Amino acid sequence: MKSLIRTRSLGFFHLPSVIVLVLLCSSGLLRAQEESVEAVVALPKITGDIIWYMVAAFLVFFMQAGFALLESGLTRAKNTCNIMMKNVLDFSFAVVGFAIVGYSLMYGASVGGFIGWDSGFLFMGDALLSNTDTAASNLVAAEWLFQVVFAATAATIASGAMAERTKFIAYILYSLVVTCLIYPVVGHWIWSGGGWLVELGMRDFAGSTVVHSVGAWAGLAGAIVLGARLGKYDESGKPLPIPGHNMPLAALGCFILIFGWFGFNAGSTLGADNSMAYIAMVTLIAASTGCIGAAVSTWLKFGKPDLSMTLNGCIAGLVSITASCASVTIIGAMFVGLIGGVLAVFSVIFIERVLRVDDPVGAVTVHGVCGVWGTLSVGVFGSQAIDAGLVSDGILYGGTAQLGVQLVGVIAVFLFVFPVSWVCFKLIKATTGLRVSAEEEIEGLDIGEHGNEAYPDFQVYSDLPEEDLA
Amino acid sequence: MKSLIRTRSLGFFHLPSVIVLVLLCSSGLLRAQEESVEAVVALPKITGDIIWYMVAAFLVFFMQAGFALLESGLTRAKNTCNIMMKNVLDFSFAVVGFAIVGYSLMYGASVGGFIGWDSGFLFMGDALLSNTDTAASNLVAAEWLFQVVFAATAATIASGAMAERTKFIAYILYSLVVTCLIYPVVGHWIWSGGGWLVELGMRDFAGSTVVHSVGAWAGLAGAIVLGARLGKYDESGKPLPIPGHNMPLAALGCFILIFGWFGFNAGSTLGADNSMAYIAMVTLIAASTGCIGAAVSTWLKFGKPDLSMTLNGCIAGLVSITASCASVTIIGAMFVGLIGGVLAVFSVIFIERVLRVDDPVGAVTVHGVCGVWGTLSVGVFGSQAIDAGLVSDGILYGGTAQLGVQLVGVIAVFLFVFPVSWVCFKLIKATTGLRVSAEEEIEGLDIGEHGNEAYPDFQVYSDLPEEDLA
Amino acid sequence: MKSLIRTRSLGFFHLPSVIVLVLLCSSGLLRAQEESVEAVVALPKITGDIIWYMVAAFLVFFMQAGFALLESGLTRAKNTCNIMMKNVLDFSFAVVGFAIVGYSLMYGASVGGFIGWDSGFLFMGDALLSNTDTAASNLVAAEWLFQVVFAATAATIASGAMAERTKFIAYILYSLVVTCLIYPVVGHWIWSGGGWLVELGMRDFAGSTVVHSVGAWAGLAGAIVLGARLGKYDESGKPLPIPGHNMPLAALGCFILIFGWFGFNAGSTLGADNSMAYIAMVTLIAASTGCIGAAVSTWLKFGKPDLSMTLNGCIAGLVSITASCASVTIIGAMFVGLIGGVLAVFSVIFIERVLRVDDPVGAVTVHGVCGVWGTLSVGVFGSQAIDAGLVSDGILYGGTAQLGVQLVGVIAVFLFVFPVSWVCFKLIKATTGLRVSAEEEIEGLDIGEHGNEAYPDFQVYSDLPEEDLA
Repeated sequence: MKSLIRTRSLGFFHLPSVIVLVLLCSSGLLRAQEESVEAVVALPKITGDIIWYMVAAFLVFFMQAGFALLESGLTRAKNTCNIMMKNVLDFSFAVVGFAIVGYSLMYGASVGGFIGWDSGFLFMGDALLSNTDTAASNLVAAEWLFQVVFAATAATIASGAMAERTKFIAYILYSLVVTCLIYPVVGHWIWSGGGWLVELGMRDFAGSTVVHSVGAWAGLAGAIVLGARLGKYDESGKPLPIPGHNMPLAALGCFILIFGWFGFNAGSTLGADNSMAYIAMVTLIAASTGCIGAAVSTWLKFGKPDLSMTLNGCIAGLVSITASCASVTIIGAMFVGLIGGVLAVFSVIFIERVLRVDDPVGAVTVHGVCGVWGTLSVGVFGSQAIDAGLVSDGILYGGTAQLGVQLVGVIAVFLFVFPVSWVCFKLIKATTGLRVSAEEEIEGLDIGEHGNEAYPDFQVYSDLPEEDLA
Repeated sequence: MKSLIRTRSLGFFHLPSVIVLVLLCSSGLLRAQEESVEAVVALPKITGDIIWYMVAAFLVFFMQAGFALLESGLTRAKNTCNIMMKNVLDFSFAVVGFAIVGYSLMYGASVGGFIGWDSGFLFMGDALLSNTDTAASNLVAAEWLFQVVFAATAATIASGAMAERTKFIAYILYSLVVTCLIYPVVGHWIWSGGGWLVELGMRDFAGSTVVHSVGAWAGLAGAIVLGARLGKYDESGKPLPIPGHNMPLAALGCFILIFGWFGFNAGSTLGADNSMAYIAMVTLIAASTGCIGAAVSTWLKFGKPDLSMTLNGCIAGLVSITASCASVTIIGAMFVGLIGGVLAVFSVIFIERVLRVDDPVGAVTVHGVCGVWGTLSVGVFGSQAIDAGLVSDGILYGGTAQLGVQLVGVIAVFLFVFPVSWVCFKLIKATTGLRVSAEEEIEGLDIGEHGNEAYPDFQVYSDLPEEDLA
Repeated sequence: MKSLIRTRSLGFFHLPSVIVLVLLCSSGLLRAQEESVEAVVALPKITGDIIWYMVAAFLVFFMQAGFALLESGLTRAKNTCNIMMKNVLDFSFAVVGFAIVGYSLMYGASVGGFIGWDSGFLFMGDALLSNTDTAASNLVAAEWLFQVVFAATAATIASGAMAERTKFIAYILYSLVVTCLIYPVVGHWIWSGGGWLVELGMRDFAGSTVVHSVGAWAGLAGAIVLGARLGKYDESGKPLPIPGHNMPLAALGCFILIFGWFGFNAGSTLGADNSMAYIAMVTLIAASTGCIGAAVSTWLKFGKPDLSMTLNGCIAGLVSITASCASVTIIGAMFVGLIGGVLAVFSVIFIERVLRVDDPVGAVTVHGVCGVWGTLSVGVFGSQAIDAGLVSDGILYGGTAQLGVQLVGVIAVFLFVFPVSWVCFKLIKATTGLRVSAEEEIEGLDIGEHGNEAYPDFQVYSDLPEEDLA
C-alpha cells in the first residue's frame, strides 16, 4: 500500500504516531483496554485547526480565479489575455513578495503600532525550516498560507479599476508595492498585536478594510492617474456604456467568489472554533440579500434587472459582511448585505457620472465603498451579545463608541493608502510609463502587451473604429 | 431534524457514538504528564462534524455554478444572461425564503406527518442568536447551512426545463413557491422525524426524490404550461434540434457538479461518520458508469458518441446513486449509475418525441426519471448488510418490502408536486404572465428581460430569422 | 501575529480554549462530571485522516476540469467537443478500470518488486463490501478514492499531446491501457511496499514521475506515432503557430489546477499529519515562481510576456515540486519552481523546432521534462533535515546518492513507459486506426467524431482553407 511505504519512509514528518491521549492508569485497566487502543487515539485539536486553515486557504486562493473571470468577463475581448496575465502574475509576485518582505512588515514586532519589523525577514526566519515535523511548525505554515492568499487578494482587486489601458510592467510594479508595503502596513494596524487600530478597538473581522478597501483605494488612485479609457466619455462628458464581453464567465466568477468567500470569512476564525459555521451562514445570507438588493434596484431604476450590476451586488454583499460577519445577528446580516447591494448600484452610477472616474468593473464601488459600509456596519448592526470583543454595541443597540472607532479606521486607511498609491503611480508614470499608447489601446492590450489573441478562431468586433483616433 | 431521523435509521454506519478517549487514573501519572497537556488537547467530535458539514455545504453551494453553466451551455447564446440571472437569483431567494419559512415547515414539529410547524419561524428562532459561542449552536448553524444549499438546489433544477421562454418575474415567483412550500413539505415527509414516508421506511439518502424529482416535476409542469419554444417542432410535429451554444461551459458545469456531488452525497452522513468515504467512492463510480452508459448508448444509436448526452448521462448517474449511495455494494453502484446513464438517453428521446414536451436541457429526464430510478434502486440493489436501516433487502437479494415503500414514496411525491406546481404556474400565467412574447423569444431574453447581451464583442447568429414569425 | 490578536479580542466566540479531554481519575470527580461526557468526546484521529483524504481527493478529482479546460483552451474551436468527451470519458474508464484491475496490480502483494497481484482483484475484494461501517474500512475507501483520482490524472495527461487528430475510439483504448497496466506498474515500483525503486530509496512524494512523466511519455509515443497536425509545419519544416482558441478557459484551467494541486501534494501525506501545511505552502510557492520563470523567459526571449507559456510555466512549477515538496526548504522550493518554469519555455521550443514533435498543449514538456526535473530536484535540493527518509542529502548539501537513485528511477520509467506505449499505439493503429482522416481533421473532430459543434451560435473560422489539402 502506498500509505504503508510512505509512512515508513517519511518518519521524520510524522506525528509521533501514537499520541496517547488516553493516559492510563492502573495497569489492570490498561490491559483490559489494550485491544481498543487504536480506536481511542484522538485527533489533536491543533491538527483540526490546521485542516480548517488549509481548507479555508485553498478556497481563498481559488478566489483568484473568480476575480480573473469577473474582470475579464466585464471587459472587452481584446484585453482578455492581458487581464489573465495580470491575475496570474499578481498572485505569483504577491506570494514571493509577501514571503520575503510583507509578512514580516505585517506581523513582526510592532514599531510604535505602525509597522512590523522582524530580524528574520525571509518570513518566519529559520524556525520553519528546521522544524517541519512538529505540529506547531505545521500550524505556522498553515497560518502563513492563509495570510499569503489574503495578500494576493488585496493585490488583485485594483486590477479591475485599471483594466484595459495599463501597461503590463506598470501593473506588476504596483502589485509588488501593494503586497510588500501598503497591505502589510494596514494589516499591521488592524490585525497585528500592537497595531494602533487594534488598540483602539477597531473590528474588521475578515478584512472589509484591510483587504478590500486597500485594493480599492489603490485602484482608485490608479484609475485617476490613468484617466478614462478612450471612448468612455463623449465630447460632452457623458459616459458611454462599454459592455463586458463574456457574461457567463463573469457569472461563473461570481459563483467562484461566493464559494471562496466561505473560506475568506469562516476561515478568519483562525482555527476550528465555535463560530465558523455561524459566520459561513451569515456570509451566504449577505451574498443573497446583496444580489436581491442590486437586482431590485436596477429593476426599479432601469425597468429591467441587470446582470452585471446584480453580480456586483452579490460581491458587494460579501464585501459588506466581511468586517461584521462575527458581530451581527442573522437579521442584521440580511440588512448589511441588502444595503451593500443597493449601495453598489448607486455608487457605480455616482462614480461614473459624477466623479467621472472610469472604473471598468466597478471595483472601487464594490470593494471600496462597500468595504467602508461593511466596516461601519460593525458599529451599526454589531452586538456585544454576539461579539464580546466589541468596544460597544452598534448604534441600533444604543452604542456609539464602536462606530466612532470604525470611522477612524476607515478614514485613516484611506488617508494612508490613497496618497501613497497616487505617488507610486505618478512615479511609475514618470519612469516606465503607466498607460499604453492610444493605438495599442484601440487594437487591444492582448496584442500590444503580449502578442496574443484570446479568441483567434472567432469573429470579434473591434468596438472602436480606427478613425475615432483622429 | 433531518439529522435525527437520518442518524437514527443509519445506525449501522455509525461510530460507536461515545468513544471514551479520556480515561484514567492514578493522580501520580496525571501529574507526570502535565507538561504535555498541550499535545493531548483533542479536537472534539462535534467540531469534526462541523468541519465536515461545512466542507460539504460549500461543495453543494458550488453546484449552483455547475447548474448555471450546464443550463447556459446547453441553450442559445441569446438567452445566456437570463439564465445566469435566474441562477443567481433563485439561490438568493431560496436562502432568504428557506430561512424565513421553509426550514420551519420542513423540520418543525410534525403536524400529522405531513408538514412541520414551528413557533419560531425565522428559522431556529432565537436559540442561535443568543448562543453563537457554543459548539452546539455552531452545529445548528452548520446543519442549517447544509439544508439551505439543498433547498437552493431543488429551486434551481426546474430552471432548465423552462429555459429560453419564461418571463423572469414568473420564474422568481415560482422559485419562492418551491423553496417556501413544495420542497419543505416533501422534505418533511421523507427526512424529518415523524414524516409519514419516514415512518413507512422510505430511504432517500441524499435526495434523489426529495431534491431532484421535486425540481423535475415542478419543471415538467412548467414546461407543459409554457409550451414548446418557437421552432422546436416543425409543422408535422417533428422535433428539430436546437443545439447548445457553448459546450466547454456545459462540460465545465458537469465537472463542477461531480465535484459538488461529493458534498451532496457524502455530506448527507450529517457529520463525520464511518460511511462518508464509502459514499464518496460509490458516487464517483456511479458518475463514471453513468457517463459510459450514455456515451455507449449514443454511440450505438447514432453512430457517434454525443457530448451533451454524455454530460447528461454523468448527471443521471449521480442523481441515480443519490438515494442509494449508502445502501448498495460497489458493484451495485456500477449498475445503478450505468442504468441511469442509459435511461437518460432514451428518456430524453421519449419525452421530446413521444410526450412532445420541450425540455431544453433534459432536466425532467436527468432529475425526474433518473430520480425515480435512483429512489427505486434502493429497493433493487439495496442490501441490509450495507444499510441496516432498510425495511428489507432489495429484490436482487430476495426482499420486496423496500421496493414497495420506495414506489409509494415516488408516486406520492409526484402526485403532490406536479399538480401543485401546475396550479401555481396557471396562477402565475393568469397574473404576471408566464411566457415572454414571440418577438422577445426570437430576439432573445437577454435583451427583452434584462437589456443585456452576453457576448457583445462576438458575431452571434440569430438562429431563427424574423420572417419565421409570420 | 494576526492569530494572537484575533484570538484575544474574540474571546466570546472561542472554545473554552482548553477542553480537558483527558481527565480524571478519582471516581468521585468522574461522577461529578458525568453530564459533560458529551463535551469530551473527541474526534478519532482516523476520522481526521479520512476527512483530509477526502478533501484532497475531491480537489484532485477537480483537476480533471482544469486539464479539460487547459487542453481545450489551448487548441482550436473545432475540436472542443472532442476534447471534452475525451476528458469526461477517460476519467470514467479510469475509475472503472482502476477499480477492476489497476488497483490490485499497483498495491497487491509484490511479485519480485515489479508488479502487484491480488487474489481479490475487484479492488479490495470483499473486505470493503462486508464492513462498510467501521472506521478501518472507511479509511480503505478514502485511500481508494485518493488513489483512483491519481490514476485518472495519469490517464488524462497524454490527451493533450495527442489532441486535434486522434480517433476517439483509439484514445479510449489507450486510456484503458494506461490505467489498467502502465500506471499501476510504475506506481508499484515507486509507491508500493516491495517495489524495486522503493527499495532503492527513490523519493517521488506525490508523483512527478509516477503520474506526470508516465502520462507524458505515453503522450510522446502517441504524438510521434500520430505525426504532426496538418499545417503545423510548412514545406521547409518550419513550425507554424496554431494558437489556442479560448484563452480565458485555459487560464481558468490553470487556476483550477493550482487549486486541485493543493490536494494532490498536501493530500499525499496520506492522512492528517504534521507536514501537510508545509507541503501546501511550498506547492504554492513553486507554482508562483514557475509562473514568474516562464513569464520573464518569454519576455526576454520574445520581447513580450506570453500568456499560454506562462500558464504552462505555472503547471511546470507544480509538476516540478510534486516529487520534492516534502524534501526541500522554502528557498529550495522557489528555485525548483523557477527552474521548472524556465525549462518549460525552452523545452517547448526545443521539442517543436528540434525534435519536430507536434505536442499541441506542451504536455510532454510540462509533465515529462518538468516531471524529470522535479524528480531529480529531490537529489539536488533535498535535505535530510527536512525529509529523514532520503538516502542522502541533495548535491547542494553535499550528497550524491539520492540524485543517483532518482536518475535510475527516471530512466527506468522512461524505458518502460515509452516503448510499451509505442507498441500499444502501433497496435491500435493497425486495428481500429489511430488518426482521423485529413478531411475530418480539417473540418474538426467535433463534427467527425461526435456530430457536435461546440459553438454553433458563433462565427468560427476554419483556420485551414480546404485548398491547403491539395
